Amino acid sequence: MARPTGREDRKMQFVRNAWYVAGWSRDFGEALRALTILNQPLVLFRSSTGKVVALEDRCPHRLLPLSKGRRIGDTIQCGYHGMTFDGAGKCVRVPGQDNLPASAYVDAFPVEERHGIVWIWMGEPALADPGDIFDMPEFEDPNWHAHHGDALHIRAHYLNVAENLVDPAHVSFVHPTTLGSSASEDVPVHVSTAGKVITAWRWIRNAPPVGFFQKFGGFSGNVDRWHYYHLHIPSTAVIDFGSIEAGRNIAEEDRDEGVRIFALHFVTPVSEDYTIDHWMHLRNRAQGDEDASAQMDGMFRTAFAEDVAVLEAVHEAEQRPQKRKPIRIAIDKGPNVYRKRIRDLVEAEATEYLGEPERPTFVQHD
Amino acid sequence: MARPTGREDRKMQFVRNAWYVAGWSRDFGEALRALTILNQPLVLFRSSTGKVVALEDRCPHRLLPLSKGRRIGDTIQCGYHGMTFDGAGKCVRVPGQDNLPASAYVDAFPVEERHGIVWIWMGEPALADPGDIFDMPEFEDPNWHAHHGDALHIRAHYLNVAENLVDPAHVSFVHPTTLGSSASEDVPVHVSTAGKVITAWRWIRNAPPVGFFQKFGGFSGNVDRWHYYHLHIPSTAVIDFGSIEAGRNIAEEDRDEGVRIFALHFVTPVSEDYTIDHWMHLRNRAQGDEDASAQMDGMFRTAFAEDVAVLEAVHEAEQRPQKRKPIRIAIDKGPNVYRKRIRDLVEAEATEYLGEPERPTFVQHD
Amino acid sequence: MARPTGREDRKMQFVRNAWYVAGWSRDFGEALRALTILNQPLVLFRSSTGKVVALEDRCPHRLLPLSKGRRIGDTIQCGYHGMTFDGAGKCVRVPGQDNLPASAYVDAFPVEERHGIVWIWMGEPALADPGDIFDMPEFEDPNWHAHHGDALHIRAHYLNVAENLVDPAHVSFVHPTTLGSSASEDVPVHVSTAGKVITAWRWIRNAPPVGFFQKFGGFSGNVDRWHYYHLHIPSTAVIDFGSIEAGRNIAEEDRDEGVRIFALHFVTPVSEDYTIDHWMHLRNRAQGDEDASAQMDGMFRTAFAEDVAVLEAVHEAEQRPQKRKPIRIAIDKGPNVYRKRIRDLVEAEATEYLGEPERPTFVQHD
Repeated sequence: MARPTGREDRKMQFVRNAWYVAGWSRDFGEALRALTILNQPLVLFRSSTGKVVALEDRCPHRLLPLSKGRRIGDTIQCGYHGMTFDGAGKCVRVPGQDNLPASAYVDAFPVEERHGIVWIWMGEPALADPGDIFDMPEFEDPNWHAHHGDALHIRAHYLNVAENLVDPAHVSFVHPTTLGSSASEDVPVHVSTAGKVITAWRWIRNAPPVGFFQKFGGFSGNVDRWHYYHLHIPSTAVIDFGSIEAGRNIAEEDRDEGVRIFALHFVTPVSEDYTIDHWMHLRNRAQGDEDASAQMDGMFRTAFAEDVAVLEAVHEAEQRPQKRKPIRIAIDKGPNVYRKRIRDLVEAEATEYLGEPERPTFVQHD
Repeated sequence: MARPTGREDRKMQFVRNAWYVAGWSRDFGEALRALTILNQPLVLFRSSTGKVVALEDRCPHRLLPLSKGRRIGDTIQCGYHGMTFDGAGKCVRVPGQDNLPASAYVDAFPVEERHGIVWIWMGEPALADPGDIFDMPEFEDPNWHAHHGDALHIRAHYLNVAENLVDPAHVSFVHPTTLGSSASEDVPVHVSTAGKVITAWRWIRNAPPVGFFQKFGGFSGNVDRWHYYHLHIPSTAVIDFGSIEAGRNIAEEDRDEGVRIFALHFVTPVSEDYTIDHWMHLRNRAQGDEDASAQMDGMFRTAFAEDVAVLEAVHEAEQRPQKRKPIRIAIDKGPNVYRKRIRDLVEAEATEYLGEPERPTFVQHD
Repeated sequence: MARPTGREDRKMQFVRNAWYVAGWSRDFGEALRALTILNQPLVLFRSSTGKVVALEDRCPHRLLPLSKGRRIGDTIQCGYHGMTFDGAGKCVRVPGQDNLPASAYVDAFPVEERHGIVWIWMGEPALADPGDIFDMPEFEDPNWHAHHGDALHIRAHYLNVAENLVDPAHVSFVHPTTLGSSASEDVPVHVSTAGKVITAWRWIRNAPPVGFFQKFGGFSGNVDRWHYYHLHIPSTAVIDFGSIEAGRNIAEEDRDEGVRIFALHFVTPVSEDYTIDHWMHLRNRAQGDEDASAQMDGMFRTAFAEDVAVLEAVHEAEQRPQKRKPIRIAIDKGPNVYRKRIRDLVEAEATEYLGEPERPTFVQHD
């Protein structure tokens, strides 16, 4: 069941050998659920063992999506002529005949569930390693509170969505009344990379708290404020942001002493024109306080709607013929590094590397 | 006025030399009515002689559809500059000039009306033979009641719609509570062909009556149930279905002794993405009973909506790039024969056969 | 900032070196206003000096339309990362860096305002001559009343919209109850050209007044009625129409003695599928009477809605594959001349003329 990366993926810049978020655990139950990831229609359901199953959403006979059929035990019966498939994609029944042809299967996709999040592997099944799934110790730390938010549906390419999450500079202009303020407009951005993570960050020292922390942190005077955008290749973002009284002048590594929040974005490419961003947060304050969670979700919703408006307008503009090349500026360092990493990964997936030749293919003897 | 079948038709798999149903007689009156068949925009109206006229719906001058103009007697006056065409498509007036150029015409299409049904010939007019129009003696038989139903508008290719009408196997899965039941899931399907008719049929012996016949037939015990799907090339279907008490164990040819219904489908291709299916029935019970007709229409509407949902989902799936070929299974015999017949017809229409050469084109003399 | 006419323009038949109407003066104030002309997205606003500014609506950085940003004084700040542009399109700020790269600009478009109308030059800025803007003395003549109407948004190509404005023959069929009547159906049309103006006209002598002049002119008996359609290349139309008592039998040049109206249409191409037509009128009756203006606007709205219905149906029909060429008839003289003029202009803009060679490129000496 090799699923080679083709020309289509290269054009779309889809990384196939990766874990993507299919949804929250609460989204999957008995019912068949249709979902498209990397242009691949999928049908998902939670089997009687509790495990979520993901299959290609296409009967191999007349192509009716299996999600239009019905679940019979842990199998799906196609709604057109009753061909039936188990959770591994194997055909277990063809009404009107006894033999089950080998080509009567649907692809099955590895699925893992962690901390209330359902992950799906869209690439070569043999390469799926659950150890590669994004994790962080705060999920299980009692000093931290994790809260699953919601999902943004964005009519934009996933690279634009993810790039926005390694770009602290947009905050001052897109979110002037919520997450940012004019105090940060000209503060330079630092960028570094480590393994599969690109980090862009900056500190805004000794400035009034932004709207979010006015509401949430209860600060009265000036604060030191930080933004660390960690983008995990291909498209999981951890935004570490927080504030602390300016007078304390803490070191970077002591951020836990302030009000600290991790906003997580799991960016799932649907098609070249559509992306789903599942967002949640972890915080080191108000553990177990559902009112605080709801209030923060409200603030996130307001801020993320501002991102969606910009991202969709940019996507629409990109579809037009361009008479000049776009320009890149100093603050683009994070996005630039990110796009190069993705291009390299896509190129690597589309190419088969055979190693060095043992001998030169041509040797001239004189 | 030759209308050669071109590349477009071959791609669409449209058979042009055939009679198609334009509508019920009740649909056509004084008003101009726009309709598209085989991608050909048409304007139709009933002339003062009572005959329905069908013209190309395009003024040859500035292309305004004639259906946007107005009827003046038995002519149509274009709504832009007043060019006027008679029922044969001939231009009878060009305002502002006296001469009527020969190229100022619109195509006219042969139309025939039978049993309350309006048929139109979309091919070469010289080949139009009213004797080829679908007919069956039950239309005029006092033991039978004919009732015109309605028209389904389906976002699907006509071959998928028509193929569904020579496919008894779908009934168990698409219509489990109306026309079918699980009792028939594995009963094999027989297929035969005779001239322009492909027939697929099966008997389900000694099983509980399906929903339709529970309501309509008033059976209490088990029944023998039959389904004969006669598909007349290119796209008229006669579905002969009925039930009779299982104990009587009748022979196939004695179906009139049971409750017998002919469901007729006149499948009219509009474009490669759109099809209209005019449906009606004839029955050997409840002659003249309009309540029974309305009740049956209601049951048909429920069942046909199930077909439309499947056919539109399949059509949508077919538009996507496919990474594997669809598979064919035992129950596909009817559809397979049907598609081959259509392919051959379309190919024949697209090819001019000049007969055998009188002499070989190359003879070698030694 | 040369903006050469390319293949796209040739296909669309857009004339770029011309003044087009962007809107009425009343349409432009402090707010940023997005508008597309000749497929070029624009953002416009009235600067603090009172002058309307028009810029390319695309930040050169990440392509967000500047109209989604905010106005800061007489500059626009992009809503994504805060790049800021002045009214000449020059970048005056890049947040996060000190240097302002030369390629960080947006195109600016010359704008002029006359008689309450805002004109924009879409071509080579160096060629923009305000003296070329359409004008007529009646704008400033106290015997005349000018009234700005409204704007039609039409899903049609501008050539079809403009051509309709040099085509008196359509009036009898498209506007039989408002601007025309059957009396004019066969009256021949005269066509002449002078410089950038094509004129098509006809007189309908001694006929009952049409609906418009029954309401507006208060005529009781028959009238002489005229229609002069002056189409100024590329797409400004002046329709001089009016009526006078038939008995007076005036000469053509004495039209001011009757009830005379100039209906003006400023046709602005948006894309190959969309056109905006700003319409207004001047009249030699009821100066300063706003009730009369409103009543006339009402009559124009009714009549122009009839044009829009025809033009949109024609545009839709033109998108279909055509099996035969459209035909041209006697009344098409005006449109034919117009289309040829536009084709020649577009061709000239797409070609660089280098003058005669000083010497033959090849001279043979014997």
